[in-house]
Amino acid sequence: MKKNALSVTREQDFAGWYQQLIAEADLAEESGVRGCMVMLPWGYGIWERVQYLMDQRIKASGHENCYFPLFIPLSYFANEAKHVDGFAKEMAVVTHHRLMKDDKDSLVVDPEAKLEEPLVVRPTSETTIGTAFARWVQSWRDLPVMINQWANVVRWEMRTRMFLRTSEFLWQEGHTAHATKKEAMEETLNILELYRSFSEDVLAMPVVAGEKPENERFPGADATYSIEAMMQDGKALQAGTSHFLGQTFSRAQNIRYQDKEGKFQFAYTTSWGTSTRLIGGVIMTHGDDDGLRVPPLIAPYQVVIIPMLRDKPEDEEVLAFCKALVKDIAGQRAFDESVRVKLDVTGAKSQTKRWSWVKKGAPIILEIGPRDMAEGKVAMLRRDALYQENGKLDNHFLPKDEFIENIPSVLQDIQSKLHGEAKQRLDRNITRGISDFAGVERFYKENKKYPGWLEVQWCKATGDALDKVDARLKKLKLTIRNVPVDAEPVDGVCIFTGEPAVERILIGKAY
Amino acid sequence: MKKNALSVTREQDFAGWYQQLIAEADLAEESGVRGCMVMLPWGYGIWERVQYLMDQRIKASGHENCYFPLFIPLSYFANEAKHVDGFAKEMAVVTHHRLMKDDKDSLVVDPEAKLEEPLVVRPTSETTIGTAFARWVQSWRDLPVMINQWANVVRWEMRTRMFLRTSEFLWQEGHTAHATKKEAMEETLNILELYRSFSEDVLAMPVVAGEKPENERFPGADATYSIEAMMQDGKALQAGTSHFLGQTFSRAQNIRYQDKEGKFQFAYTTSWGTSTRLIGGVIMTHGDDDGLRVPPLIAPYQVVIIPMLRDKPEDEEVLAFCKALVKDIAGQRAFDESVRVKLDVTGAKSQTKRWSWVKKGAPIILEIGPRDMAEGKVAMLRRDALYQENGKLDNHFLPKDEFIENIPSVLQDIQSKLHGEAKQRLDRNITRGISDFAGVERFYKENKKYPGWLEVQWCKATGDALDKVDARLKKLKLTIRNVPVDAEPVDGVCIFTGEPAVERILIGKAY
Repeated sequence: MKKNALSVTREQDFAGWYQQLIAEADLAEESGVRGCMVMLPWGYGIWERVQYLMDQRIKASGHENCYFPLFIPLSYFANEAKHVDGFAKEMAVVTHHRLMKDDKDSLVVDPEAKLEEPLVVRPTSETTIGTAFARWVQSWRDLPVMINQWANVVRWEMRTRMFLRTSEFLWQEGHTAHATKKEAMEETLNILELYRSFSEDVLAMPVVAGEKPENERFPGADATYSIEAMMQDGKALQAGTSHFLGQTFSRAQNIRYQDKEGKFQFAYTTSWGTSTRLIGGVIMTHGDDDGLRVPPLIAPYQVVIIPMLRDKPEDEEVLAFCKALVKDIAGQRAFDESVRVKLDVTGAKSQTKRWSWVKKGAPIILEIGPRDMAEGKVAMLRRDALYQENGKLDNHFLPKDEFIENIPSVLQDIQSKLHGEAKQRLDRNITRGISDFAGVERFYKENKKYPGWLEVQWCKATGDALDKVDARLKKLKLTIRNVPVDAEPVDGVCIFTGEPAVERILIGKAY
Repeated sequence: MKKNALSVTREQDFAGWYQQLIAEADLAEESGVRGCMVMLPWGYGIWERVQYLMDQRIKASGHENCYFPLFIPLSYFANEAKHVDGFAKEMAVVTHHRLMKDDKDSLVVDPEAKLEEPLVVRPTSETTIGTAFARWVQSWRDLPVMINQWANVVRWEMRTRMFLRTSEFLWQEGHTAHATKKEAMEETLNILELYRSFSEDVLAMPVVAGEKPENERFPGADATYSIEAMMQDGKALQAGTSHFLGQTFSRAQNIRYQDKEGKFQFAYTTSWGTSTRLIGGVIMTHGDDDGLRVPPLIAPYQVVIIPMLRDKPEDEEVLAFCKALVKDIAGQRAFDESVRVKLDVTGAKSQTKRWSWVKKGAPIILEIGPRDMAEGKVAMLRRDALYQENGKLDNHFLPKDEFIENIPSVLQDIQSKLHGEAKQRLDRNITRGISDFAGVERFYKENKKYPGWLEVQWCKATGDALDKVDARLKKLKLTIRNVPVDAEPVDGVCIFTGEPAVERILIGKAY
């Protein structure tokens, strides 16, 4: 049997595999600070790529970046809390502004330096940004306002998991204000589509875009949309949300404008976000038992060259050959950018380096020894297809020039194969046709290991009826993920009530 | 007399001018949160350019980006405080993790949710990053470690000023660990040079690089170097610092490695940073009485096109002409990047738009009316040279193709003219040749309005003697800025003691 680079396989223990992969691929590590991780160069490098490519799309769709304060005065929340029940209150609160040495020469919080008003570390910036919108928006001419910020936010989480749920995380949050309901709704759906296509095209992570049921809305939102990705254990990961906030926030924060007739109107607002959680999604979508496989578009390095050095005089020639190769490779363009290439000259043995890059998931790994060099060849490993059928590493020996010329198409191919593989998994693991709740119970009883999701029909319960639906699902550890925007029309009955169905929903277990 | 776009001139009231410029150029605004500003799209866009270009240089010099937690447990500081006296204690402290509604239904801090250990919002990350270095570094093979992070930090400032001193600010902080003192010192000086050349070449802001006197060192550092820029009021702005930390932090944090002989050694560390303060420096270096002048390399848009629309049918033709122009301009390359161009189609009058872009400081402003279009011409304003000698706007009417072809060289020229102008000011306003303290007193008495800096000689006082020097200077509101790395050899006496001089120093008023 083939031995893999990770000692825990997905099959054995998915959660353990996830943790081990993060450690072995040098993505992140525990920081010693409760619930906060250190993002290491390879993990942070992936985030930088996500940021760079997402930022281009956000700007291309008419948004501008700003930066708002980390701290939010408590009173801002109090104002909002009147309008928003079920508002999450687990937040980090700054109450003092100075340390001092006590009489034992220990450093302590200076009790004299208590703030008059506590400051909350932003869990999201609706309140501060809404306050700015109220300043900025006076007339219909000032609308729309369409801004975005890249920032860190803090939510005090009891149980944390790297990338998926950390107390501090990095994200982008978009906030817009519009004159009409129609425009604000269009913006909400444009962003949903931006997130969907970004996830598919850039992260190679297929998702289902749809609307959340009422009880899963962002507090205060009139509608919340999400993209849901299927992880390799069959669970759903909510990977991005777009909220239509109606006039809830504009009324609470007084975002008003004078329309063309001179009448005062409240604006309609939206907000939307994606975070470092996307990297958790990429891991659980593309990782295998040898580590991560990073889609070329977001790989910090797309090609890694490992010179096989033996502490011999010919080492220098090999290195010179590799350096020339770096130049040639960087001269190629893939996905409209220069190819990102790294020559790994660290001190480890070349085999150790190879496996380190396999675990990290560099798309193309090249090994160059004196013999390859003499023959003008390179030995190429594709991280998306590491093994031959016999279980041996599938090293492709190629003439150097042919390899260089083909880099763009190989990278394209890896990007699309990773997507294709994940798309097949998503499609294969959405089960349709169950028409009553007993069927749902049976299905999840019979498919404990890898249930995937169900697409079923329901009559769109709200209020108390929805709470009951929610409670029934919760017993099976299920939730409604969303109402897919591109679902087929209904043709059956509600699985909860047997009444004629109103729409289709996806249900499943979730992160 | 020519009327300028700002109502306060530099001459009248430099501080008032600075504030007005920031408001009128839409760079930033008060946030309502104590000491924190909102960075608006144009101001944040400049920061994004600074980040992008600085990040390239940081990476090209062998550093990798990471991300470390916002919060630092109090005990980390306690550990460091033992080694570091004079340690700044004005920091935001998180003591609670939950809000609750009290019996009056008001939102308050939940007293039950008190943290066992207070968390400090990072003022800088030496402590957290050093803790990580201690985990990462075991053997000489693990060295050097060279990392950088882009982050927000918080220092509780009593008197704040936008960009120059805010409670929260954005910065990059580099941290490295090395096997030898020599390597660490080389790194410290390499970064000083990186900052110097970045400031000159990218920000067009001439600086003097040098070492800080002992009493101005970063707490715990063996040596601190800075770049000092001269603002238009003759004051100095410390625009970046690079610290050689010796073994102070590695001993406090146990950053040890086994050398080739198997012996344990403490590493040598460095840290260095630049922040959004650089934007304050750019404003006070390049701003004039019409607003900001942004050096082309960091201008979010290098060319802004204002179509002169009159609500007439030919508007559409003008717009089409402008859109074609945008494409042609974006097809040009300057400074190895595509030219950044913006078509301003907002609703305001074209004259209002023109002055808005003048105040923002877009390097090239084009106005396109139906007549220009018919003649295949454009009317170009250069922001660095706005007026003719007679005080009228210096509109250049150029054939479209000629204009397009010349964009790269015009942008180059603006970049270098801005630098040249500032360099002349710096050179002209460093006075040399004063050889005793009475001369210093006389000089600053006689040159109240625009004193600039003095380059004098001293005998490098330390300890108590330095405190006395410091006190004498403070009476004149002066400080020692640094010991320029490229100063001439000494040839005279110490201005403080009359003894033979050891080195040259710059003294001046500072931000």
